[in-house]
Amino acid sequence: VIRHTVVFKLKHPLGSALERDFLNAAQNLATIPNMAKFECLRQVSAKNKFDFGLSMEFESQADYDSYNLHPLHAAFVEDRWKSEVADFLEIDYTPIGRV
Amino acid sequence: VIRHTVVFKLKHPLGSALERDFLNAAQNLATIPNMAKFECLRQVSAKNKFDFGLSMEFESQADYDSYNLHPLHAAFVEDRWKSEVADFLEIDYTPIGRV
Repeated sequence: VIRHTVVFKLKHPLGSALERDFLNAAQNLATIPNMAKFECLRQVSAKNKFDFGLSMEFESQADYDSYNLHPLHAAFVEDRWKSEVADFLEIDYTPIGRV
Repeated sequence: VIRHTVVFKLKHPLGSALERDFLNAAQNLATIPNMAKFECLRQVSAKNKFDFGLSMEFESQADYDSYNLHPLHAAFVEDRWKSEVADFLEIDYTPIGRV
C-alpha cells in the first residue's frame, strides 16, 4: 500500500467561498478508480504553514501512476491547483513492520 | 479525531543498525494509552527530503495533550529524538466533511 498525501495552503482567504469551491473540486478526485481511503483534511498544527491536506491510498505503484495520469486529476492540477494553491508539500508513505 | 503525524530524517545512515534501533524505540510510543492507529512509516516520495514518518490518532485534544506529557514520550524526545533526528515536520489533521 502507498499512502499519497499532500499538505497545502490556498491563495484564497480562510473560510471563503473560493476556498469551499476548491475543496469541493478536490473531493471529486475520490471518484478516480483504484483509490482507497480518500480524505480531505484540515491541517491543525501551528508548527507548519499549511491549512489543508489530501490523503489517499493505492494498492500498487501502477494504480498510483494511473491516478496521476487520469484526466480528472490532470484537469484538476491544470485548472485549479496551479492557480489556486500558494504552497504545498507531497509526502508518500508505506508501512514499516517491526524492524 | 486528531491525526498527529511527523515526517523526519535521521542522522544515521539509511539501513543502519542505529536506524533500526531508533525506529524500534519509536514504535514503543504505541504503548501510550488513548492512542489509536499508530503507524511507523517509510516516506517514499522523491519530492521531499524526509525518510520516515509516524502517524497516530487521538479522540480529543486532551488525549493528545496526555500523550505529549506522557513520561515515555518525554523520555523518547529527550533521549533519542533530539540527538538522532536531523530534520522533521509535524503535520496534524482533522477530517473535513463535504464542504
